[in-house]
Amino acid sequence: MQIYFTFEPREDLRKPLVAEFPEVNFVFDVKLREEQLAKADIVFTYGEDLTAENIALANNLQWIFVASAGVEKIPAKAIAERGIFVSNVRGIHKKPMAESVLAHILALKRGLPFIYEQQKKGEWNKKTSLSELNGSTALVIGPGAIGAEIGRILQAFGVYTIGCNRSGQSVESMDETHMIADLHKHLPKADIVISMLPSTDETKYLLTYEHFESMKDTAIFMNFGRGNVVKETELVRALQNKLIGHAVLDVFEVEPLPNESELWKLDNVTISPHFSSHSSRYVERALEIFKPNLKKWVAGERNLENKIDLLRGY
Amino acid sequence: MQIYFTFEPREDLRKPLVAEFPEVNFVFDVKLREEQLAKADIVFTYGEDLTAENIALANNLQWIFVASAGVEKIPAKAIAERGIFVSNVRGIHKKPMAESVLAHILALKRGLPFIYEQQKKGEWNKKTSLSELNGSTALVIGPGAIGAEIGRILQAFGVYTIGCNRSGQSVESMDETHMIADLHKHLPKADIVISMLPSTDETKYLLTYEHFESMKDTAIFMNFGRGNVVKETELVRALQNKLIGHAVLDVFEVEPLPNESELWKLDNVTISPHFSSHSSRYVERALEIFKPNLKKWVAGERNLENKIDLLRGY
Repeated sequence: MQIYFTFEPREDLRKPLVAEFPEVNFVFDVKLREEQLAKADIVFTYGEDLTAENIALANNLQWIFVASAGVEKIPAKAIAERGIFVSNVRGIHKKPMAESVLAHILALKRGLPFIYEQQKKGEWNKKTSLSELNGSTALVIGPGAIGAEIGRILQAFGVYTIGCNRSGQSVESMDETHMIADLHKHLPKADIVISMLPSTDETKYLLTYEHFESMKDTAIFMNFGRGNVVKETELVRALQNKLIGHAVLDVFEVEPLPNESELWKLDNVTISPHFSSHSSRYVERALEIFKPNLKKWVAGERNLENKIDLLRGY
Repeated sequence: MQIYFTFEPREDLRKPLVAEFPEVNFVFDVKLREEQLAKADIVFTYGEDLTAENIALANNLQWIFVASAGVEKIPAKAIAERGIFVSNVRGIHKKPMAESVLAHILALKRGLPFIYEQQKKGEWNKKTSLSELNGSTALVIGPGAIGAEIGRILQAFGVYTIGCNRSGQSVESMDETHMIADLHKHLPKADIVISMLPSTDETKYLLTYEHFESMKDTAIFMNFGRGNVVKETELVRALQNKLIGHAVLDVFEVEPLPNESELWKLDNVTISPHFSSHSSRYVERALEIFKPNLKKWVAGERNLENKIDLLRGY
């Protein structure tokens, strides 16, 4: 059995993996090479290097392990036609991402951008208004594993949490949950609006200028899901017209965010280069999810965790 | 009965207060004037404007309400000799301060200073190492009301908390507690060291260069108590020699931090101008503490909350 890694984990992570599975032939590469993919039974990838063309060459391939939460870049149709099993690292991002979301909220409430600026100027200056997170209301659109972790921590800070999902069925760590169809009714209550939505046909351009009109003019809008949940032009217009207080964006319609984007010119936005899930402990975590599943696979079991439904896209 | 405010709360806060206590004569001033202090039965102050001289003029004064957690600037001896009751707003700072402490920790772990810098340059750049708070160990020196709130939230993030106080007796939200005398034994375990110590004879210069030698070279040291817990020269030397990873300082030996301080020149320090307790909701909160106590006072009761022991200084 050949497992092909299309990136190279650190040596201290590779060694124990190889030792744990002596029956498996591991190939680690710095990037995907087709001649190696052609021989692989299992591929371990970040999910951005597979194409319908190279899948066609991978005659032995039975399982694609995607070390990412989003799988929208894999050639789903070509993979589905071949009946290749796909699983991902669902849940791996929840801690680092929840920490990033909280970092940004608290930084804005407690004046960190101001503190850093004054320090750079060498000025002792208290003249800014600091506010507080406790007592606020947060609305999470699409609360899955990451949203639940964000909700859990927000609740610890004394924040009231509202979830909006497709069904309106209650989810973990949300004080109340409603249907996304009723979003406009609940946006006016929120001090913080966080989109965690994946990219699907249903979520594309789901948020419109009118949704920003429904928000408080002091609201913080955060997009940590996928960029195309809102047209960049509408988001820019909402920010230019100060419909909300601030936006914190980790994802964008086009990534990397183009130099000519109006977003770079606004001062009521924070631009994070789609890396809020990054962590020096990321690969370690991905392997923690991979290993027990590989053990099952080697034993002939096929009921692996985090199976991706290629038609739904998550 | 005359209550003298040596600052002027916002009108929306003054009006309901005056309405609630028709038997009391309120005087609100933008700063302390001795002719008004001379007539006051109760003074409501931030605690920085009282002197032994003006206390001597305040013949009617029976109660000083200090809208601050630290009372080291009041003339304790002169007040104690007169038998004037002093109380403060203990606990008022806990939420905003805990939020500031968490904001700084998370900002460092999740790369916010880097994000802000890249955005200013208009660059999409992911090349920095992001780490995580969960799974860390934090040591809080002097965990009182604020430290307990910090500990409670750190625990929600999955942080193991160690408290160090005079007695070593266990306190709220600390997984274990030890005596400050044994501090050097516990510092090597901590990823984050937070001093919340007040300024007293016992705490002055309690932390030395050797304590920083005991810390991890990646540790974040935070001083949100009082500046003279460590000599600035020793702290600067510890930072120059990179004994620790970063310091976040809200308090300093001399405040405002002098222009010539070496701290301004270091890049492994965050300088916050002693305002981590500030909040747009501060006076509202101080009045929430003051009102029930004033009700008791008017009824002749003297067992008020948050009594200050003038000899201990807190």
